[in-house]
Parts: sequence; structure tokens; C-alpha cells
Amino acid sequence: MKEKNNLSCRELTLRKTAAFIKKHDNYVILTHSSPDGDTLGAGYALYYGLKEIGKTASVICPDLIPKKYDYFVHETDHVNRETATVIAVDVADKKLLGSLDEVFGDIVDLSIDHHISNTRFAKNLYLDANAAATCEIIYELLSFMRVNINTITAKALYTGLATDTGCFKYSNVTAKTHYIASQLYEFPVDAANINKLMFDTKSKKLLELERMVLDTAEFHFDDKCMLLTVTEQMQEKTGCSGPDLEGIAVISRSVEGIEAGATIKQIGEKTYKVSLRTYPPIDASLICKQLGGGGHIAAAGATVEGELDEVKAKILTAVKNVMEEV
Amino acid sequence: MKEKNNLSCRELTLRKTAAFIKKHDNYVILTHSSPDGDTLGAGYALYYGLKEIGKTASVICPDLIPKKYDYFVHETDHVNRETATVIAVDVADKKLLGSLDEVFGDIVDLSIDHHISNTRFAKNLYLDANAAATCEIIYELLSFMRVNINTITAKALYTGLATDTGCFKYSNVTAKTHYIASQLYEFPVDAANINKLMFDTKSKKLLELERMVLDTAEFHFDDKCMLLTVTEQMQEKTGCSGPDLEGIAVISRSVEGIEAGATIKQIGEKTYKVSLRTYPPIDASLICKQLGGGGHIAAAGATVEGELDEVKAKILTAVKNVMEEV
Repeated sequence: MKEKNNLSCRELTLRKTAAFIKKHDNYVILTHSSPDGDTLGAGYALYYGLKEIGKTASVICPDLIPKKYDYFVHETDHVNRETATVIAVDVADKKLLGSLDEVFGDIVDLSIDHHISNTRFAKNLYLDANAAATCEIIYELLSFMRVNINTITAKALYTGLATDTGCFKYSNVTAKTHYIASQLYEFPVDAANINKLMFDTKSKKLLELERMVLDTAEFHFDDKCMLLTVTEQMQEKTGCSGPDLEGIAVISRSVEGIEAGATIKQIGEKTYKVSLRTYPPIDASLICKQLGGGGHIAAAGATVEGELDEVKAKILTAVKNVMEEV
Repeated sequence: MKEKNNLSCRELTLRKTAAFIKKHDNYVILTHSSPDGDTLGAGYALYYGLKEIGKTASVICPDLIPKKYDYFVHETDHVNRETATVIAVDVADKKLLGSLDEVFGDIVDLSIDHHISNTRFAKNLYLDANAAATCEIIYELLSFMRVNINTITAKALYTGLATDTGCFKYSNVTAKTHYIASQLYEFPVDAANINKLMFDTKSKKLLELERMVLDTAEFHFDDKCMLLTVTEQMQEKTGCSGPDLEGIAVISRSVEGIEAGATIKQIGEKTYKVSLRTYPPIDASLICKQLGGGGHIAAAGATVEGELDEVKAKILTAVKNVMEEV
């Protein structure tokens, strides 16, 4: 059995990370649970890079990998878990290893990540919190190591770059992100098709749910506030749950003139989870504080008990209080 | 009065375009009607560039410029139209000058464009059909001329790049597009805010319409075909028309597993305009040909007469015929 990590985590530079990777072999590369384009893209790009320099490596994901990533996800090597060098990519906390936490959580040799919140659970950490995606870091690492990048590696890296930035839309994008994308476009990555798969394809059940949720739209305070409701019945009827619902809160702030958008998700008979999205000058955290919750300026949440009408009234009062202050 | 163009249009290189611009002065820069981010971004970026080299220039748009572009749209110089050097940016045909066609349509001295369909209506043309946006060309032109780019120029250029590519999502994006974006990010362009304005803000009336249209969703042929309907009543009730409806057709192909999506828009009591979107192996043009229309492999259209139910039946028969062939 491998030794467990002690408490100290050594922070590496890019150069030292490259040296570490060159020195070791028989890698297990771990992605986080509920895998997204960045953790998978980073894991597989690193795998393809390791193969280029003659290493043996296996990519292990705690959950089933969605079929839409098939264009860069392939079978990897068999590696003895007992003696492997373990690398976690895009994993901010060992808990995010999900079902693999028990096996690997305490024996990760190297963590490569871009989350500033990384809990330093690994023996060694290469963290670049300015990177828009872990795939940005893997690109830099492979480039620094002069490792050959081929089309499938480029596809994997592009996927992480695009998915973690809302296709280059969000504030985490930098000059470097676009520069790396321009380098990846030198390969036939077929980015338009990747983007179609990642951004413009939703499940029929989600379309159904969105339809139902839009039917609940209510506007208040001169159309500055919108309420959307997702009942348990809607979730049951469409079969949508958890991750499916994440996109819904975005709708509540997508309408012109809206300053505060609330999505009210039923999680029990008389229990509702409220997700609030606001634009300046409205502070979402001040609204949710009144409801017993908290959060950030632009996004906050609270759990509110009561009948739906009571919950809505409580939210509207809280919104009104904050709107009257500005 | 300026002389009208004769029939021949001279095609310029980038070098000759730069020489033309350096040689002349007192510019009128024309954008196309129903202005979008690319024509406005290109027009104003060119204007700011011309100011940097001491020229006098005026940007003229045939239509009211939407308020959302205020961050780079400012008052420009007053230029005598009679003696001006006229440049059209992102204008593929003089008809697209709208209300300005009569005044300027036949006296455009230089057209800078990326539409392969450009009708060569100007005396001189610099066309780069590989450019994702006319803003890409303007960036290259200003760089070639060693003209200083400042933050407002960068914001204007970024806007064109982003809007003409669906935020770097579509197949017109190249390595060069991302490279230019990376250069523009060297300025504080605040791209995340630009993208929010351009992509994540819709009018309340459009949300209303989308809600109504989603309520009409019908699935056929093992969920491989989706029909959406936009009645005249919906358009009247929400006040949505023409350009507002363009985004709707996209919904019809956004669902997983859909091979053919049809949007049926009522344009008369018993007249419907059908927009078809398909994915391989289904050929949209073959379907619309059966309905008396035509188009391309992935996008085609037809005008169909009859009651809504009859129209739907005709579409479904045409879709079925093509689906059975593949």
C-alpha cells in the first residue's frame, strides 16, 4: 500500500511539475465526480501527452463519462493502483473524487488545478488560479515539456477551454485563453461541432422543464424582478433533477431590465430552495440574508419554509426592502 | 455631385487598401441597415483608427443604433457628403444600405467586407471571405498601417468578432479569430460585460413568445422530428416580429436526438412560412423541395398554404419521405 499524505502540501512551479512528470511513471489520472469538459479534457490531454513520452497511464473517472465526450475519450492503459503515481486534475477537494475518495483521496501525489479554493489535499500541487480552465494549464505544461500535441489532444484541450468559459463568454477568459485556442485551431479540432455538442444540445426532458418553468414566470416591481418556480411535480413529470436544473437560474436574469431574478425550487412539501441572481445595484446576498441564507453580490441562495405563495411573498418583501435602499 | 460608379469594381489587396486610406480624407463610413455588432464595430473601429492618423470621418448608419452599443458608439465628425470619400463596411450589397442606398449606393469608393456574396457595387473592394467578421479585417488593416489601437477601438473590434461568431462558437472561427481576440484582451475591453449584453439579455416580449412557442412543441418519428408553431396571434400578443423571430428556428434543432426541426410561422390567415433545420443524414433542402421551397443541406425553407393542421401534415409527410430514404 502507498503511504498516506501527511499534512503538508508542496506547491510546485511549472518547471518542477514538468520534472515530476518526467521522473515518474505508471500514472493514474483522476478526474472529479460529475465530470465536465474541463476535468475530462485535462485528464485525457495529459494522458495523450504522457503516451507521447512513453509513459504508461490510466484515466479514472468516479462517474460514468457522458457519451458526448466520446470524440476524445478512449480506453487507457491498465495501471496497478497500488503502485501508481496518482495525479488529480481539476479536483479542488478530495471529496470531489466522489466514490474514488476512499481509495485515492489520501494518496494523490500531484494535483493540477485552477481553483483558488483548492484544499491542498495532495502531496504536491501545481495551482494557477488565473487559468480559465485546467486545460489551459495542461496546454502550458505540455508546451513547456515540448511534448507533441496531436489532434485528439487538441480536441480534449479545446473542450475544457470552451466549457469552463461558456465558450469564451465569461470573465475568467484572458488573452492567454484566446491565444491557446488559436494554437489549438492549428489542428483540425472541428470546434464548431464540439460547441454544438457542448452548448446547443439539450435533452428533451430539459426542454419540457424549461417550458413548464417559463409558464410560471412572474414579473414584479416595474418588471425589475422576475420569479420562476420549479415544483416537485415538474421535476417528477420531466425526470429532471440536480444538475439538469442548474441552467434554470440563468434564465431568471436573462431578461432585459431585470435587476433581481429568483428561481424557487421545491425540495420538500413545504420547503423551497431559492436561487437569487442580481445585477448592480442590487446585492443578492442582502436579499438572501433576510431569508436566512447568504451568498455573493450577484448570486445568493436561501432555503425558505412555507406554502409557495408564502415563500413568494417573503422573497418579494426581501427584494423590495433592498430595492428601496438603493 | 460625385461621379457615379461605373460597372467595374477594382479588387484591392490589404496593402493597396491601406494606401487608399492614407491617401484620402473626409470619410463617410457606412454601415448596413438593421445594424449588428460587426458592421458597427467595424465602422467605429475604422473611425477611431482614422482619427489616430489625423483624418476627418463620420460614421453613418441607415437605422437607429440600438442603445446596447453605447459603450463604443459616440458622436463622429461632420463631413460634407458631397465631397466625402465613402467607405462601406460589412455591406454585401448596396440594397443593404437601406434608406441610404439612394444617396450613397452608387458612390461608394471603397467596400471592406467578408461576405463572399459581395455584389461588387463599390469602386474598390477589399474582400476577405475567410475572415469570420469584418472586424477581423479592420484589425488587420489597422495593424498593417501601424495605427494605434486604444481601448474603445478594441471594444468595438471585440464586439464584431464575438457577435459574428456566436461568441467563438461557429464554424467561421479560425486560429486568426482567436489570435486577434487574444490581442484585443491586452486592453481592458471588459469582454464579459460585452458578452452579457450581446448574448445573455433578451427582451421580455421575446421570453413571452418563446414560452408560447415551446407550448406548441410536438415530437414525431421517435422524437427525431420537432415542430414549433408561431401563430399571428402570438406575434400580435407579444409584439414580436421579423428579427425577433430569428432565434426561434434555432430552438427546433437544439434538442438531443432531433434530426429535423421545423418552425412554422404564420404570415397570413392560411399561409405559413416553414423554416427547417436538420442534422446529417437528413437533407433539409430535399424536404423543402417537396413543399415548393428550397435551401441548403442543414437549413431550408418553404411557404405552405392551408390550415395549420394541413400544413403540419404536409411537412410531416415530406420529412417522412426523406427519413425513409436514408
